[in-house]
Amino acid sequence: MDFELNEDQSAFADTAAQFARERLAPNAEEWDQKQIFPTDVLKEAGELGFLSLYTPEEEGGLGLSRLDASIIFEQLAMGCTSTTAFMTIHNMVTWMVASFGSDSAKQTYLDKLMTGAWLGSYCLTEPNAGSDAASLTTSAKRVEDGYLLNGAKVFISGAGETQVLVVMARTGDKGPKGISAFVVPADVKGIEYGRKEPKMGWNSQPTRSISFDNVLIPKESLLGEEGQGFIFAMKGLDGGRINIATCSVGTAQQALNHATEYLKERKQFGQPIAQFQALQFKLADMATELVAARQMVRLAASKLDNGSPDASTYCAMAKRFATDVGFKVCDQALQLYGGYGYIKEYPMERYFRDVRVHQILEGTNEIMRVIIARRLLAEGIDIL
Amino acid sequence: MDFELNEDQSAFADTAAQFARERLAPNAEEWDQKQIFPTDVLKEAGELGFLSLYTPEEEGGLGLSRLDASIIFEQLAMGCTSTTAFMTIHNMVTWMVASFGSDSAKQTYLDKLMTGAWLGSYCLTEPNAGSDAASLTTSAKRVEDGYLLNGAKVFISGAGETQVLVVMARTGDKGPKGISAFVVPADVKGIEYGRKEPKMGWNSQPTRSISFDNVLIPKESLLGEEGQGFIFAMKGLDGGRINIATCSVGTAQQALNHATEYLKERKQFGQPIAQFQALQFKLADMATELVAARQMVRLAASKLDNGSPDASTYCAMAKRFATDVGFKVCDQALQLYGGYGYIKEYPMERYFRDVRVHQILEGTNEIMRVIIARRLLAEGIDIL
Amino acid sequence: MDFELNEDQSAFADTAAQFARERLAPNAEEWDQKQIFPTDVLKEAGELGFLSLYTPEEEGGLGLSRLDASIIFEQLAMGCTSTTAFMTIHNMVTWMVASFGSDSAKQTYLDKLMTGAWLGSYCLTEPNAGSDAASLTTSAKRVEDGYLLNGAKVFISGAGETQVLVVMARTGDKGPKGISAFVVPADVKGIEYGRKEPKMGWNSQPTRSISFDNVLIPKESLLGEEGQGFIFAMKGLDGGRINIATCSVGTAQQALNHATEYLKERKQFGQPIAQFQALQFKLADMATELVAARQMVRLAASKLDNGSPDASTYCAMAKRFATDVGFKVCDQALQLYGGYGYIKEYPMERYFRDVRVHQILEGTNEIMRVIIARRLLAEGIDIL
Amino acid sequence: MDFELNEDQSAFADTAAQFARERLAPNAEEWDQKQIFPTDVLKEAGELGFLSLYTPEEEGGLGLSRLDASIIFEQLAMGCTSTTAFMTIHNMVTWMVASFGSDSAKQTYLDKLMTGAWLGSYCLTEPNAGSDAASLTTSAKRVEDGYLLNGAKVFISGAGETQVLVVMARTGDKGPKGISAFVVPADVKGIEYGRKEPKMGWNSQPTRSISFDNVLIPKESLLGEEGQGFIFAMKGLDGGRINIATCSVGTAQQALNHATEYLKERKQFGQPIAQFQALQFKLADMATELVAARQMVRLAASKLDNGSPDASTYCAMAKRFATDVGFKVCDQALQLYGGYGYIKEYPMERYFRDVRVHQILEGTNEIMRVIIARRLLAEGIDIL
Repeated sequence: MDFELNEDQSAFADTAAQFARERLAPNAEEWDQKQIFPTDVLKEAGELGFLSLYTPEEEGGLGLSRLDASIIFEQLAMGCTSTTAFMTIHNMVTWMVASFGSDSAKQTYLDKLMTGAWLGSYCLTEPNAGSDAASLTTSAKRVEDGYLLNGAKVFISGAGETQVLVVMARTGDKGPKGISAFVVPADVKGIEYGRKEPKMGWNSQPTRSISFDNVLIPKESLLGEEGQGFIFAMKGLDGGRINIATCSVGTAQQALNHATEYLKERKQFGQPIAQFQALQFKLADMATELVAARQMVRLAASKLDNGSPDASTYCAMAKRFATDVGFKVCDQALQLYGGYGYIKEYPMERYFRDVRVHQILEGTNEIMRVIIARRLLAEGIDIL
Repeated sequence: MDFELNEDQSAFADTAAQFARERLAPNAEEWDQKQIFPTDVLKEAGELGFLSLYTPEEEGGLGLSRLDASIIFEQLAMGCTSTTAFMTIHNMVTWMVASFGSDSAKQTYLDKLMTGAWLGSYCLTEPNAGSDAASLTTSAKRVEDGYLLNGAKVFISGAGETQVLVVMARTGDKGPKGISAFVVPADVKGIEYGRKEPKMGWNSQPTRSISFDNVLIPKESLLGEEGQGFIFAMKGLDGGRINIATCSVGTAQQALNHATEYLKERKQFGQPIAQFQALQFKLADMATELVAARQMVRLAASKLDNGSPDASTYCAMAKRFATDVGFKVCDQALQLYGGYGYIKEYPMERYFRDVRVHQILEGTNEIMRVIIARRLLAEGIDIL
Repeated sequence: MDFELNEDQSAFADTAAQFARERLAPNAEEWDQKQIFPTDVLKEAGELGFLSLYTPEEEGGLGLSRLDASIIFEQLAMGCTSTTAFMTIHNMVTWMVASFGSDSAKQTYLDKLMTGAWLGSYCLTEPNAGSDAASLTTSAKRVEDGYLLNGAKVFISGAGETQVLVVMARTGDKGPKGISAFVVPADVKGIEYGRKEPKMGWNSQPTRSISFDNVLIPKESLLGEEGQGFIFAMKGLDGGRINIATCSVGTAQQALNHATEYLKERKQFGQPIAQFQALQFKLADMATELVAARQMVRLAASKLDNGSPDASTYCAMAKRFATDVGFKVCDQALQLYGGYGYIKEYPMERYFRDVRVHQILEGTNEIMRVIIARRLLAEGIDIL
Repeated sequence: MDFELNEDQSAFADTAAQFARERLAPNAEEWDQKQIFPTDVLKEAGELGFLSLYTPEEEGGLGLSRLDASIIFEQLAMGCTSTTAFMTIHNMVTWMVASFGSDSAKQTYLDKLMTGAWLGSYCLTEPNAGSDAASLTTSAKRVEDGYLLNGAKVFISGAGETQVLVVMARTGDKGPKGISAFVVPADVKGIEYGRKEPKMGWNSQPTRSISFDNVLIPKESLLGEEGQGFIFAMKGLDGGRINIATCSVGTAQQALNHATEYLKERKQFGQPIAQFQALQFKLADMATELVAARQMVRLAASKLDNGSPDASTYCAMAKRFATDVGFKVCDQALQLYGGYGYIKEYPMERYFRDVRVHQILEGTNEIMRVIIARRLLAEGIDIL
């Protein structure tokens, strides 16, 4: 058992921290307030390898483990939660194409996705299939020239401003085994985008619904084989849960760092408010729970990397725990700033708005509990 | 002991509910997103008496108790948290002028404040005197023609768009006994307003800082006598705490109502999500704590109305408890909406943003604990 | 609306407080450690009317409201949680006999129950019908001379040392409508008592299981009519929930009082630990939540007294909230005592053990949530 | 980074689990109820090496790391919390003698301590120096033949029934630098033991106060050098915190295991209560937080093993977090058992009573927050 970063991990973390400090943090406020999707900075991220972190080396990616990626994403999230969260989604798209795409698909998309020349959206959620992904109804009908897509997706990150879509659609019967995955250019005829959703946060990435109206795509668009889509989605979700949990941890760490400094500077009743024991205790609890959250994320990532049979359960635990703690820490950091926490001159309220959605996305934290309990009551969890 | 509304209270509540439903709720989203200060609707509120609820009857107000006012504000907050919160501040200004103003001041301001023709801002907080109001440094120097105001205020609700300011300033030595209160036209020479603060919520009321640079005001501007300002401020704060707590209760009730309906309508896994026991339990806890919060607010208001010696302690308890519960309920209601809770098409995220500041304003909830503990450890609290 | 005690209530509370101080508190430790059922002191309580608080006046009881009774029980619980809790159960038994008993039953039992000459046990729970009371299987078969009781009850307070049993048994079909209530002498042939259950707390009242083996009772034993038992039980439960919640409030108030004094006396790091702000904040939160809990109990009692249609829901809320808060306050009071909280020389650990069962009894707090949610999702709760 | 047990650790864990299952668990109820100090079983533990886990190999101990020891103690705690907690204290005593004892002391005590022939008590806490250890007043005056001990200790585990005492006493001025450590036979003239403290839990180890009245001990009793006692105590505390936190984790895991099985067996409303989603969610949260607690403990142990500069902070975090989670899990497990959780026929209420003291011992959880906050506000915590 070993809890320290190795040399490579430290080096990656340093690079990510620098990028976060220099390229993300200084712009995050503007991206939030003006709702800017920072495609140029995403390209820069691509140049550093941040868009192909766990894409296999043989496909040109960095071939890192999920644990490595979590260490990197955590640092990036300290600069901009929302942009980093988009990067994690894009990484998932890239990984899916690299892992399951046809040669043709890899040739078409992979380089462009890894460099950030093209950006990718992941299209799973539907209006009536949020937590219940297996019931999705978007259809992909086999026709002579390929597949005809029909249906609608909602809450799609990047939609309308990305070039590539990975779409889960039904090629077979009801249930999970009828679902297949496709990679699709974002501008094919028949794809329509809804209005840009005004959201509470995550404003540096646009969110739109997408409708597919007899969208014809070639048969090479299929990822893997027909009927494997739900398996890919579930694999993606495990990693996605670690990623989103990681974004919460990084943001909360940044909020805690700020709040710690603020307590030392801000004076009331003639002394720095860091002198007040009740605020010290709050700080101590924030730090403690945050350390626990980070450990949970790394443990789950490690289980996923090792192919542990209960990796999914640990990913669900990490997602539930770290996104709850992340929000709580940001909420309390905001409170420690008093009135200054509530105005946009300080980043506290942005952290607070941005991390809130992590408790909902990638399976709500309620769904996480369903997953955890199911396992506990069936096989149990291996605890040593 | 009696926990039921009397007939008058029910009638007031009905009127307020109707106003909230018809004039506030339909506009609240737009006021929030476009940051509109709804002065016309505030005038309508004035016509119904909502701007002079506890202004004495002999001065033309409704002469209601704090408890009555809380019952009314709760209904109004169900329509728009931010606008109702402003009304409560305006009511405080009106009450201060009516209760402590010179005849001249009453003649100048009172009618206009009660009808809403003029709106009022309450100027207590300073950059370095947030929680520590007694240390404020804005000065009011006695000169031949009246007083010369110098200094700065921050986080002033309505500032820049209201016509009347009640200003706490120092006429004497350090400490609470050197503070006096003044009522001042908002456009006197030497008053400058800062930029409109971008805030996370409370967007239907503008917030600005104010600077006073040799602002000359007549001696009739003084409320009560020199040195009484802190006493007035403290009286105002007790009522203000009940009011802000009330706004949390009303908003949370609205959030709970929406969430309850949503659970019945939204389907996942083939059934309304209201069928899921874990969500039912969440709903039950939200309702239970909200009922407790409402009782705390009414108990405190009643103590204040009765001049109970520990009214301030009960007001602090009510403010702490009800604003914490209010936020928690809104947070969980948002969660029950899933992704739909995070987008601006639904009011959940607005409730969540709006009530968050109540845990900070009118004395942070940390300061409330200081107040409560001090009393507990000194005289104790009368508990029967 | 009025939150103050009236003169009668104050007088009753004073009498109860004195009894608690003089007759309960000094003995509570011994009763707990030696597991003594204090029948003599219970008789003294009877003399003061504490065993017939809401028995109708025309039957010789005090005819108080549930709210009055709660005010009294709260004071008594400050002296001994476990003994007061038994008194509430005994009051329920007395009330059932007085309200629904045949003339013969009233003549036999009522005087003796009201004076405490005889003590009563309430026999509802069965091994396989804890939360699910409607499924009970103890049967009462109509025979020529009366009824034949067969079956078993568990967790019966007082059992084996009381003289009177009120027993819920099935006279009809499955479900709630087949249940009837009987009052039975505790020593009829065929009644057997299990061993005295060793419990974590509530040690001043013995708990045993009871088995009924062809127990013949006269037909005058029937309370009300056949099939009304479940209705009586539900009525009893509403009141029982208020009572148990009240016992939590009283105990927690006592724990808070002790802890407040202890903080002023105990010195560490050269000063009374009451000087430490984090402990002050803890104290403030304990007091605040306790006040809220008390209000919830009184609100529910008042709803029950007024026959409000949603009284049961409010009783469930009060029970859930006040027993949770009561335990939390006792837990934190124990913590404030440090190591001294854990040893039996101080009453903290007894309070902690005694109130813990209140979250389980009279319907677990989980069942309370079921009740609350069901109402919320059906008719909703009247909130004004 | 690596989160898996190595082969040795797995083997140790298995041995410990077997011992817990066969020698501790079957007796734990009796030891608790009859307050038996199981010296024979402790000797058996000594034979397996459990009393010298991190005593250096060159002194005859197992020479394990703190992390290894935590893995073992966790398994033991699943069998009996209180007995395992005593073993951790005994291990500390053994380690102190082995690490800092004179040759004479080692020769006298070490073998006997490692085998469990003699048991050891650790004497730090005084009536007025609980959290504030540096202010202790027990004195050790240098005299010709050694030292004269005078003073009193409280809450000493094992006292009166152990053979060896490690005593912290003041040889110099006020403050931490005046404190020295001694190893003392438990039966020297002048040592008197108080009555066996009746406690809420931890009943398999006796707790007594000790008074020293001119107790003459040889100069070879000194551990290390004069003035080093506080340093040893602090080193001991870091390890002690990991140990006590470990005992909470093990107990909570056992409680969770039982509760999971119980939910599958217990039926209400016609189905196993494991079918109720709200209970499933509770189970999921218990498991999640417990996994986080275990990680915190192991992380801290690893920091301590590596001599990390912020090891003490991590130990404080682990102690605070894991003992809070441990209690919470046991509390909820008890609740899941309903009435059966409250009676001594099932182990739930024992787990609940036993782990409660862990939030108090080895520095209260409030003191942990002081330690954590101090570090955060000074150097900060290294978080990578």
